[in-house]
Amino acid sequence: MYLDFGAMKPPEIYLTLTQTVIPRPVAWVLSENLDGGSNLAPFSFFNALCSNPPLIMISVGRRQDGSLKDTQANIEARREFVVHIGHWEQLDSLNESSATLPSGESETQRLGLETVCFEQFRLPRLVDARVAFACSRYQIQEIGNSGNTLILGRVHGVYLADGVVGKDNRDRPKICADKINPIGRLGASEFVRFGEIHTRHRPD
Amino acid sequence: MYLDFGAMKPPEIYLTLTQTVIPRPVAWVLSENLDGGSNLAPFSFFNALCSNPPLIMISVGRRQDGSLKDTQANIEARREFVVHIGHWEQLDSLNESSATLPSGESETQRLGLETVCFEQFRLPRLVDARVAFACSRYQIQEIGNSGNTLILGRVHGVYLADGVVGKDNRDRPKICADKINPIGRLGASEFVRFGEIHTRHRPD
Repeated sequence: MYLDFGAMKPPEIYLTLTQTVIPRPVAWVLSENLDGGSNLAPFSFFNALCSNPPLIMISVGRRQDGSLKDTQANIEARREFVVHIGHWEQLDSLNESSATLPSGESETQRLGLETVCFEQFRLPRLVDARVAFACSRYQIQEIGNSGNTLILGRVHGVYLADGVVGKDNRDRPKICADKINPIGRLGASEFVRFGEIHTRHRPD
Repeated sequence: MYLDFGAMKPPEIYLTLTQTVIPRPVAWVLSENLDGGSNLAPFSFFNALCSNPPLIMISVGRRQDGSLKDTQANIEARREFVVHIGHWEQLDSLNESSATLPSGESETQRLGLETVCFEQFRLPRLVDARVAFACSRYQIQEIGNSGNTLILGRVHGVYLADGVVGKDNRDRPKICADKINPIGRLGASEFVRFGEIHTRHRPD
């Protein structure tokens, strides 16, 4: 079957892309509202980009009414944000944090998610998340014709819960992907649980 | 544990980012060499970005000697490229296609991968891949300080193998993620197999 995107409308294209560019990592983004409260929302058009400097990207769409999402407005206004990698047991909280709340209402409070001071960073991190990146706005650019925004974030450092750091077969510290047990995003209302890890060495 | 990226070198930062921004989808990119042969290589700094127009991004680093990778040179020179989503049984071929071959040697020939005419598109697709996106260069921009390049591709359409299209519970066509059975990329030499699908409806 060939689907010609030139003959399809953006919502159908969106559904098709999200069902086929899989599995996607999820950035569970904490940002600071203008009143100082915490906003939390998941984004799966997300990835790392490079390591010098350390950059990640998140592509953020508009709300259905065309207005900016809080995450974008907050990052534009306040610069810093925290990206968490949620683990499987956090799936319900992560999904519920995608609800649009009245401005000023905090997802962390509503969902009963506790935050904790994040080393020297200005914003807190979710105490239960096993991976958290301390980020600041690096570059923001509009992309496409429907007000999407590509947010590039500079990563200053990463928090790793003790439980995810193990040893490799030469006794060196190793980050264990299965201990992170990350959520993978698919299309529509689907998520994928972490599967078996297999090792393949690069040919050169 | 807190890892301060300001105190780490790019290779350590790269290893840390690739071990924690997980699971990553893999773009298995076919491009056309200047002599007309096919180049094939996997990239996991990859995702969809938006649907109007349909855009995907791939972030491409340099070779160890600082030169451009063939994929980037080819997309710059020839504009079109094809992104496949490899399935689990293609893991060995996908991994082996990351080898640096002498210029002009084709990964598809070396790995015995058959290609087929891709609808009206100028380039072929891998006959065994279940998902293939017909793409053209939309925008290319350098990012960071080590010659990384962010390639934005416009997606003209997508091929879906018959086996991945099923029905949802209202009998409408549905793309089945488990039938795609995509490869997920982790850090170092690790890949993750597709796991259980769980459904969570958006709260609004």
